[in-house]
Amino acid sequence: MFVRNAWYIAAWSDEVVERPLGRRILGEPVVLFRDSAGAIAVLQDRCCHRGAPLSLGDVVPRGIQCGYHGLVFDSAGQCVLVPGDHKVPPGARVRAYPAVEQDAFVWVWMGDPEHADRSILTQYPYHNDSRNWPHQHQTLHLRSGYLLVLDNLMDLSHLGYVHKGTVGGDATTHVEAKMRTVRTPNGVRFERWMLDSVPPPTYVKAVGFKGKVDRWQEIEFVAPNAVIQWNGAIGAGTGVLRDWKYDSAREDCFSMRLFHGITPETENSTFYFWSSANGYNQNDPSATTQLFEEIARTFEQDKVVLEAQQQRLLELPDGPLVEIHGDAARIHARRAIDRLIAKESGAMRYEHRASEDQTAPLKPGE
Amino acid sequence: MFVRNAWYIAAWSDEVVERPLGRRILGEPVVLFRDSAGAIAVLQDRCCHRGAPLSLGDVVPRGIQCGYHGLVFDSAGQCVLVPGDHKVPPGARVRAYPAVEQDAFVWVWMGDPEHADRSILTQYPYHNDSRNWPHQHQTLHLRSGYLLVLDNLMDLSHLGYVHKGTVGGDATTHVEAKMRTVRTPNGVRFERWMLDSVPPPTYVKAVGFKGKVDRWQEIEFVAPNAVIQWNGAIGAGTGVLRDWKYDSAREDCFSMRLFHGITPETENSTFYFWSSANGYNQNDPSATTQLFEEIARTFEQDKVVLEAQQQRLLELPDGPLVEIHGDAARIHARRAIDRLIAKESGAMRYEHRASEDQTAPLKPGE
Amino acid sequence: MFVRNAWYIAAWSDEVVERPLGRRILGEPVVLFRDSAGAIAVLQDRCCHRGAPLSLGDVVPRGIQCGYHGLVFDSAGQCVLVPGDHKVPPGARVRAYPAVEQDAFVWVWMGDPEHADRSILTQYPYHNDSRNWPHQHQTLHLRSGYLLVLDNLMDLSHLGYVHKGTVGGDATTHVEAKMRTVRTPNGVRFERWMLDSVPPPTYVKAVGFKGKVDRWQEIEFVAPNAVIQWNGAIGAGTGVLRDWKYDSAREDCFSMRLFHGITPETENSTFYFWSSANGYNQNDPSATTQLFEEIARTFEQDKVVLEAQQQRLLELPDGPLVEIHGDAARIHARRAIDRLIAKESGAMRYEHRASEDQTAPLKPGE
Repeated sequence: MFVRNAWYIAAWSDEVVERPLGRRILGEPVVLFRDSAGAIAVLQDRCCHRGAPLSLGDVVPRGIQCGYHGLVFDSAGQCVLVPGDHKVPPGARVRAYPAVEQDAFVWVWMGDPEHADRSILTQYPYHNDSRNWPHQHQTLHLRSGYLLVLDNLMDLSHLGYVHKGTVGGDATTHVEAKMRTVRTPNGVRFERWMLDSVPPPTYVKAVGFKGKVDRWQEIEFVAPNAVIQWNGAIGAGTGVLRDWKYDSAREDCFSMRLFHGITPETENSTFYFWSSANGYNQNDPSATTQLFEEIARTFEQDKVVLEAQQQRLLELPDGPLVEIHGDAARIHARRAIDRLIAKESGAMRYEHRASEDQTAPLKPGE
Repeated sequence: MFVRNAWYIAAWSDEVVERPLGRRILGEPVVLFRDSAGAIAVLQDRCCHRGAPLSLGDVVPRGIQCGYHGLVFDSAGQCVLVPGDHKVPPGARVRAYPAVEQDAFVWVWMGDPEHADRSILTQYPYHNDSRNWPHQHQTLHLRSGYLLVLDNLMDLSHLGYVHKGTVGGDATTHVEAKMRTVRTPNGVRFERWMLDSVPPPTYVKAVGFKGKVDRWQEIEFVAPNAVIQWNGAIGAGTGVLRDWKYDSAREDCFSMRLFHGITPETENSTFYFWSSANGYNQNDPSATTQLFEEIARTFEQDKVVLEAQQQRLLELPDGPLVEIHGDAARIHARRAIDRLIAKESGAMRYEHRASEDQTAPLKPGE
Repeated sequence: MFVRNAWYIAAWSDEVVERPLGRRILGEPVVLFRDSAGAIAVLQDRCCHRGAPLSLGDVVPRGIQCGYHGLVFDSAGQCVLVPGDHKVPPGARVRAYPAVEQDAFVWVWMGDPEHADRSILTQYPYHNDSRNWPHQHQTLHLRSGYLLVLDNLMDLSHLGYVHKGTVGGDATTHVEAKMRTVRTPNGVRFERWMLDSVPPPTYVKAVGFKGKVDRWQEIEFVAPNAVIQWNGAIGAGTGVLRDWKYDSAREDCFSMRLFHGITPETENSTFYFWSSANGYNQNDPSATTQLFEEIARTFEQDKVVLEAQQQRLLELPDGPLVEIHGDAARIHARRAIDRLIAKESGAMRYEHRASEDQTAPLKPGE
């Protein structure tokens, strides 16, 4: 079960270049390409002549050309050429999906095209600010359903177990973190503080912390598919953290932003589009790369757990599961998705309500 | 759905040597071997004792011996030995399939053995004429149903897209080809002429064409499983082509024959037995090899498209497909198969009618 | 269909060390680990919090800790810690399976824990007697159902076909073997004598036989899952074999013991826990290793046949199978399992009856 009337990340902008890109989104095979003006188009990846994937074809001036018998389709999915200038038969078209590029992403709308409202796109301006937030990114494929990927991000207590050696560090620190969870109009946000704590290995590598730190994590889930994270640490007891005024000029200040885009490939597999942005040593590209490599390692660790968990739950779906205190944000996040699905399936007509669909403003002060 | 009462190619003759050969044909596992006189036998590949594949066993003087407990079966499938000279239990036999060798092929009859008439075997005498048509051959496995493989051969407009770099060449040439399609008693034949056209790379490699050519393709489908192809080109404007009198002694004359044997392994996979015969430089084995390598590369390109197409159609079987002008021969070919299937399923008794089952004579003049 | 109320081998003792071991037994995922006192525990391999496999976690002083969010479970499956010393929610537990170590094995009881009676464990004291029976062992995974693995061991006539080059030797020798099969209270036992026969390659390698031998095999199946085998040979015509008094001090005496533990992983796959013990040259570790390597090669040969047989029978389950004289022991063994399954499914309450569950004493004289 998916929310269909939503923008999903289909690719990073830089994944769609000369060649068409075939990908499966919400269970449907789609092909992404750029028209001659460079604008993104997304079509069903199945030629309406003999069913060959269009992604095996070529981008041509008028659109995309099937690699089997040469039919050409424009960005709207209309067949505009049958080779030999024969008449295009009526009905020769493939489904087109609304698509838009923003913040380094290709977003696609898999639901009713009538409701594809660009104004509700999740914003992530940091991807456009390479001076303050130089970043690197990756597309990770997980054989795990999107809800489990979301769960993973909504309970950061797993950092102390799965990611001891990178961004997690000491498990007790996470267990004792102060935490506040608030429901937002279209998701949930939580904040965690770990004052006077031992910094995790990734942070130490980044800025060379010698002693303890005051550490924070801010996580916002924007239903149904984006998690926006701001993390950092600063020398313990400086009082700086209280006002959310860290100073990146200080040597003992670490800060990073993570974007997590969660796009279902199928019910049980997911594309995970993530980026890590360096907010502590912006002028050093090797620092940005080092951070990226630490986070990439971290998500490979998640991949192992998530895929094994998915297999277990598929096999033993009826066994009881208990809830613990750490599940609060996770449960809120799931409910936000449930509400969207209920709205889609129950409503006669789909409506956006501003009060529900606006992303709550991020905490100021960065 | 398969035509069962037909001869199918199960192997090349030279694939069946000392060891038994296990293969799946029309969904049934069979084992091919030679008796002590060298004659071909085809049995169900499942010992009637404990179900082990006989193809793991050995060829012995009296037949084939199961590699598990040593039972021996003769060419008729009768168990003739239970080790220790114990009595062979009643009913100890496996199914045998009529089989015959002809034209370098092992043909097998998967339907009612009563109707296995050798006189209706498709003829391909060129395999026995190594002086005029030296050839090489291959068994290619495709994860694609046999109907899609047949479709591929029935619409050669794909040569300009899939095989630009080998036997196709310029796409426009194919689009503008003059074409004639005729229904034959048991299939369909079509001819294509591309006069005054740029020769494709494989032809140029073969005979070093410097300018344009007059080019021809003759394709005959003999239902349900053989496609016989004669292709060639000669210097443009010589007038030679009009009378189908090309002269292989001329340096600017290229000619090849292709045989395509299409044998379903399962509903969605196929063995593709093909040969390429060199009709332009018969005394040079390296020319025959070069041609084979070009065609092998060509069919690897088809494999990519056919397997992707099969996946798409399995996944999205209900989406509409449109027909274009290039589908004429393809549709005739499918209908020829449909008629055979209808005949088998509807008839109380299977009958050959000479008028339907005789291969139409190939065009003379080669 | 499995017998559930029985002890199955889940692992070799030496497979369960510092790390938890995940394995599937009778279709259920389990995790094996040792508590702080070194005692074996077996739990369902699925955390009751979010379903992650516990086998990805760590062994900790109080039990096993889930690697995802850190819950700890004791050997009885009770959750004893939710990180942060939060209250353990009611019902937070996973299923525990009775387990015991004996004779180098970890045995697990997958059925009703009430009936897990240690007194009915199959005994194999030779694993504890490294002076007289130094051994090596292996866990082999077979994509073949456990009944086919059992069949394999119950008809040793396959040695002359599958294992000609190792423990089999000449096929006729096996065909002509004298054989006695007796039903035991909980299985079947058979003995085979091959007097004045050519010794097989493995035996010759072991003790350098120059001429013919008197050779014996004793096989006992203890339903539902253990096969205990004693094999040997001695110079032909010494008369020694008549009284089962072979003399390991003699140079022309070969003797080995094999244990075969057959544990269903799923209906169609099996863990095969086997050991080979050297009873002819106990003071030479290289002799023990050489024997192990010969047997390992032998079982790889079985694996090929068993997996191919399983595929064939899954695909063509309804084809007739005939029985031959060699099937006697096999049929008895299957019936012993059938009786146990019938008892479990039919009985209101499961009862052990000493008369049925005691292993018949092995033949004395070794």
